Amino acid sequence: MDTIIQRLAMDDTAGNEFYIKRDDLLPFSIGGNKVRIAEAFYEDMKAKGGDTMIIYGSRHSNLCRVLSDLCFSRGTKCVMICSHEAGEDDAPTNNTHLITWTGTEIVNCAKNEIAQTVERVMNNIQESGGTPYYIYGDKYGKGNEGTAARAYAEAYREILRQEQEMGVAFDYIFCPSGTGATQTGLTCGHLLAGDRKKIMGVMISSRETERAYQVIEEGIQTYFAEHPEVREQMPEDLSGEIHLLDAYRQEGYGKYDARVEACIRQQYLANGIPLDPIYTAKAFWGMAEYVRDAGIHDSRILFLHTGGTPLFFDYVSNSSEQQQKP
Amino acid sequence: MDTIIQRLAMDDTAGNEFYIKRDDLLPFSIGGNKVRIAEAFYEDMKAKGGDTMIIYGSRHSNLCRVLSDLCFSRGTKCVMICSHEAGEDDAPTNNTHLITWTGTEIVNCAKNEIAQTVERVMNNIQESGGTPYYIYGDKYGKGNEGTAARAYAEAYREILRQEQEMGVAFDYIFCPSGTGATQTGLTCGHLLAGDRKKIMGVMISSRETERAYQVIEEGIQTYFAEHPEVREQMPEDLSGEIHLLDAYRQEGYGKYDARVEACIRQQYLANGIPLDPIYTAKAFWGMAEYVRDAGIHDSRILFLHTGGTPLFFDYVSNSSEQQQKP
Repeated sequence: MDTIIQRLAMDDTAGNEFYIKRDDLLPFSIGGNKVRIAEAFYEDMKAKGGDTMIIYGSRHSNLCRVLSDLCFSRGTKCVMICSHEAGEDDAPTNNTHLITWTGTEIVNCAKNEIAQTVERVMNNIQESGGTPYYIYGDKYGKGNEGTAARAYAEAYREILRQEQEMGVAFDYIFCPSGTGATQTGLTCGHLLAGDRKKIMGVMISSRETERAYQVIEEGIQTYFAEHPEVREQMPEDLSGEIHLLDAYRQEGYGKYDARVEACIRQQYLANGIPLDPIYTAKAFWGMAEYVRDAGIHDSRILFLHTGGTPLFFDYVSNSSEQQQKP
Repeated sequence: MDTIIQRLAMDDTAGNEFYIKRDDLLPFSIGGNKVRIAEAFYEDMKAKGGDTMIIYGSRHSNLCRVLSDLCFSRGTKCVMICSHEAGEDDAPTNNTHLITWTGTEIVNCAKNEIAQTVERVMNNIQESGGTPYYIYGDKYGKGNEGTAARAYAEAYREILRQEQEMGVAFDYIFCPSGTGATQTGLTCGHLLAGDRKKIMGVMISSRETERAYQVIEEGIQTYFAEHPEVREQMPEDLSGEIHLLDAYRQEGYGKYDARVEACIRQQYLANGIPLDPIYTAKAFWGMAEYVRDAGIHDSRILFLHTGGTPLFFDYVSNSSEQQQKP
């Protein structure tokens, strides 16, 4: 079933129309883009003969929440490698609570120990007779670039269908850009369709821009390598197709200021939509800033709501009435 | 757009099939049955020439959350009368935080002071030139029984359409029964359709059963009085049509034990569905108990998920890993 696309009430004097695709309402494990992506990983694990899922993320991870729930519901063992930034607050979030409910084993490690931790966990599983599947490929996180992209290449076709039904043609699709998987998938979908849309990733972490660009480029190449029947639709030069906005990441992953908080309240109040400070509100705010700064006008602009409702409620339950009135 | 109906994975050895209708995913203000009901109240206010919305509920109220957001988004002033049980914990919930965001004025009162508080608030609004609309009618909460019912009489037609599409005929529809409005609406829909379905309300509060029955009966009568074109479809005797289960309310409104908590975890884990302890999990647990106790077998059973995701997260964020493993 398609997720709904809604028109947004927005302050805009440049003749733009704003829309939102509510992937936060995907009907499993509190929704989000990670529902589509988790399904793709799970199928890939089965196809490759794996029996134990190894997932990776921070305490804010929506992907780990969905994958741990998916594994539980299908009787598959799951281990989470949870990385921490030095000096970072490590209080449990709603996502970590829900992951804990599933009984998923959580292995904590520092940011610079990920590869060795993945290796150790994989070895342990093998020694006890299991066949581990690490969602990102090898211990360095390489070798599985195409799987997550597939999910949003497919979702792109859903958007094209909905454009027809609604009688609207979007000029831009904006999404939060973290790992880059969603943006990669949407860009593949756009290349396959050969349409004029621009896929814009709003960076929400401090990943170096050039590195982020490279990851998306490699992802697109992998996707097309895995789909030889459409390989000719990939342009030689991808440089005009990958749009990364790096001016709105503020102090980096998980950091946000009052402008992002104002955006959360504004969108809840004006449109009844929950956005979270780590991913979607930061990207939404960045989109609005960019549209104004770049002088975009008379365009139809779609924001992909990638979910994170548990993080919205982390914010709500810690927000007091005294802080910053709307 | 219709909300999805999903098949549930359930422990059942009596040949029953369980389904859930995800009204928690209605795409405004975190969803729930109150989205449909709030729209009905808002239209009714406009039709009656009101300009100030007066809403009523507890600190857990999903209806007050949705109505305060709807009023904000449409530029309508809103006042909430918030009742407290003596000795009850009055810490703010996610719903009260979100209501506060909207700037809705909150007037607190004790459970036995509701009528006089409604009257005072209405008088104040009139004195300052406004036209108050109290969602429940007069100061005693009488006179607007048909409005909320209308929303679920309409939703019933959506369910009938979905049955056709899915090729399933439901024998039972279960829903939480608090104010009774949703059950009243579904029962009206059933009477209009003249079908065989049984509409089952699982009581979640300590309202006296006979009183609850009466409220639903009056609601049905009001609905049919307001729709003279269908009046002949109302049976003389409603006694076989109103099904209230009062054995699962535990210690009353907002009170729940470990069986309800286990149900929350089970449904999240097995089906990726958030249920809350105040309304939906208590009703879902009650449904499962009743189906077993009453020996219901080989039936197709639909549970209406009436929302309350903010209350699910009140529970999640207070649940520690130590408490009750699944």
